[in-house]
Amino acid sequence: MRIVIVGGVAAGMSAASRARRFSKDAEIVVLDRGEWVSYGACGLPYVLGGDVDDFESLVARTPAQMRARGIGVHLNTEVTGIDAAARTLTVRDGAAGRTTTEPYDRLLIATGVSPVRPEWAVTDLGGVHVLKDIPDGQAIQASLEGAKRACIVGGGYIGLELAENFRARGLSVVMLEKGPDIAGRVLDHDFQRRVREVVEQQGVDVRCGTTVTGLTGRGGRVTGVQTDDGRVRADVVVVAVGVKPNVALAKAAGARIGKTGAVAVNARQETTVDGIYAAGDNTEATHRVTRRKAHIPLGLTANRMGRVAGVNMAGGDATFPGILGTGIFKVFELGVARTGLTQADADALGLKAHSVDVSSTDHASYYADARPIHVRLTAERGTGRLLGTQIVAHNHHSAKRVDVVAAFLQQRATVQDLFDSDLSYAPPFSSVWDVLLVAADRLHRELRAG
Amino acid sequence: MRIVIVGGVAAGMSAASRARRFSKDAEIVVLDRGEWVSYGACGLPYVLGGDVDDFESLVARTPAQMRARGIGVHLNTEVTGIDAAARTLTVRDGAAGRTTTEPYDRLLIATGVSPVRPEWAVTDLGGVHVLKDIPDGQAIQASLEGAKRACIVGGGYIGLELAENFRARGLSVVMLEKGPDIAGRVLDHDFQRRVREVVEQQGVDVRCGTTVTGLTGRGGRVTGVQTDDGRVRADVVVVAVGVKPNVALAKAAGARIGKTGAVAVNARQETTVDGIYAAGDNTEATHRVTRRKAHIPLGLTANRMGRVAGVNMAGGDATFPGILGTGIFKVFELGVARTGLTQADADALGLKAHSVDVSSTDHASYYADARPIHVRLTAERGTGRLLGTQIVAHNHHSAKRVDVVAAFLQQRATVQDLFDSDLSYAPPFSSVWDVLLVAADRLHRELRAG
Repeated sequence: MRIVIVGGVAAGMSAASRARRFSKDAEIVVLDRGEWVSYGACGLPYVLGGDVDDFESLVARTPAQMRARGIGVHLNTEVTGIDAAARTLTVRDGAAGRTTTEPYDRLLIATGVSPVRPEWAVTDLGGVHVLKDIPDGQAIQASLEGAKRACIVGGGYIGLELAENFRARGLSVVMLEKGPDIAGRVLDHDFQRRVREVVEQQGVDVRCGTTVTGLTGRGGRVTGVQTDDGRVRADVVVVAVGVKPNVALAKAAGARIGKTGAVAVNARQETTVDGIYAAGDNTEATHRVTRRKAHIPLGLTANRMGRVAGVNMAGGDATFPGILGTGIFKVFELGVARTGLTQADADALGLKAHSVDVSSTDHASYYADARPIHVRLTAERGTGRLLGTQIVAHNHHSAKRVDVVAAFLQQRATVQDLFDSDLSYAPPFSSVWDVLLVAADRLHRELRAG
Repeated sequence: MRIVIVGGVAAGMSAASRARRFSKDAEIVVLDRGEWVSYGACGLPYVLGGDVDDFESLVARTPAQMRARGIGVHLNTEVTGIDAAARTLTVRDGAAGRTTTEPYDRLLIATGVSPVRPEWAVTDLGGVHVLKDIPDGQAIQASLEGAKRACIVGGGYIGLELAENFRARGLSVVMLEKGPDIAGRVLDHDFQRRVREVVEQQGVDVRCGTTVTGLTGRGGRVTGVQTDDGRVRADVVVVAVGVKPNVALAKAAGARIGKTGAVAVNARQETTVDGIYAAGDNTEATHRVTRRKAHIPLGLTANRMGRVAGVNMAGGDATFPGILGTGIFKVFELGVARTGLTQADADALGLKAHSVDVSSTDHASYYADARPIHVRLTAERGTGRLLGTQIVAHNHHSAKRVDVVAAFLQQRATVQDLFDSDLSYAPPFSSVWDVLLVAADRLHRELRAG
């Protein structure tokens, strides 16, 4: 049994480790087109600001460590073709400059996503970056030497994490967002201002509704960003306007691509092609609230998919439980989190949903360092079923309460169930009636009142 | 309709507020034998250490504010007798020195608990205290003036909270505990050392297996504590060896007292006597894991019971959902939490339970300020049903993860359900595989292996 895994970061390495644990005999080979495998990509922004010491710290296991565990790791190795009938791959070894044919019995496509690069961002100018992998991070790090002005294009969570870390280095930061507000894919529109307020207080010049049209440069280096509302001077530009799943290999193999644009799989992470699995950011999943397919690339999801694929490729039987789209990020003092559906998500799906907004302090208001926490809680009218929550917390760690709602969503519980929950209380940790309970109480009453 | 509430702290005031909201017409009267009502008793230790500014800060609503909402509040007023057939109370007004008879249509007994005072602690010596209410806190505050040596008798959570706050004031602290370890009612024995280590590192002289036999004093002030292992010098002694429910009034009314020693009620908080309700620390509840009666006096439980009683006394229909015994406390840098059953609890109930211990960091180990977190997770063999968890976290706020397990316990979920949960992840908040997921994975495997 030869298991070949294409892509050696979250999903790929989880699959390799799990397959190795499950099967003593299988040959397991990981092919990655880059030079780094098995690292925590979510930590990249923090190396730039200093909360993570260096890029090496992000590496969970080196190729040597993987090999010692009986997992073959080939870097600089790109899969350029596939013959799914013959179960062979065409593989180009970048270092040796050689192309070979590799057989497989089970193949995992864990090729992740690529950052979207608008046409204006395809450039030879130095100082223009995306942030997806360690080489991207290293390139930004190098560009930051002596830089004073950063321009971040895109107000999603990666852009916001970068803004915090650039400010930590003392740079001036302009954030350009095409849409009406920042954090637009995470929070409902009218809940986003709570994030924007803090980001602006921290000195980030946020310009929403602004479209980038081009770049300016001198001597091969970027000097600014042209927008429909004038030019923004910048020594460093990072483009963080979204990602697209890397599905070329899956397509070439004849695997079905879902309506979400990501690779379609069953609960065993099998694609529609026999012997070929997919896992990670390039793969869609079933959303446990909507029971529809969704493409929400996140770290735990990728690792879990990889784990399931690894077990199954090695002859076991594991199933992926689905996702709730639970996400969290830190931006300056804020923790921002959501799980399940926003009100806008529910509206778009035609669900009859109702939301309440509650503001409180994260712990007893009389105890030191109590800070505001804002919660939006959403449920279905009629049934009272919980649909989702959004949290903005000024003690960032308090946004982790989102997991309590995720636990209830998973069980398809009601607002009453959440209100009935016996949550922990002591003054340094929460109010007697935690903000989640206050929100559940209010939502329950408003749902009953119609 | 005349609603009389005996006891004006957590349960009593929740009941009064809720009854007022529910009924515009009822007359609502709160009788309290003390001078303070509607305050957060859980905050008392923190006034002593300075994390709470003063005792007044603990007050949620003053009697004047309650009266403005149409709730009569009578301080210094003790109920000395009851005629349940006639629905009257004998009431002594301490200020006026007068005894009257008060009628009621609905009566709530929310008389709370009293600290246990061993025989040796019944003394006229100054400097010997318990900590239950604001006057107790004020008396300790006064004793601390010029004090250098504190002795805390009892290693439960109140004793531990006091130890932190006394150390914050620079006092030397000796903690005497009769049992084999501290935090004995919260954590399994072999899990407690993690707490003890930190408490000792912070300079508290912890002496377990030590029985107090008496006090020494001079000039009317305490000078030390006599034990079976010698004398401990002390200017201030706080006795925190447990509480007992105040059930005298309920007994006098003919209400059934449960095997737990607390007042027995149904889910509507009704005692066995018509028209008489009980709520709060004096009242037992159904444990949602064991489905047996339990007496675990905690702040949220008291408030929730009061709320249910308040609605029902005012003619509504509310039910108390039961408890999980979810508790949390801070001691120095540690957050210590538990929900559901410990391994020892499960063993005592004859359940076939199995536990795993997992240690990790509370957030990504490469991100700044990652600190250890230790989790014990317990489930039932055969069914895989979750029974409980215990958490000791060095970033104290991370112990709040206990609520995720509480949410699953409430739904009678399995270890697999917990493992399948889509928890939030970003490096400043957790590891990709949060310690709860790692624990669930390991427990699931060990249960399957038998």
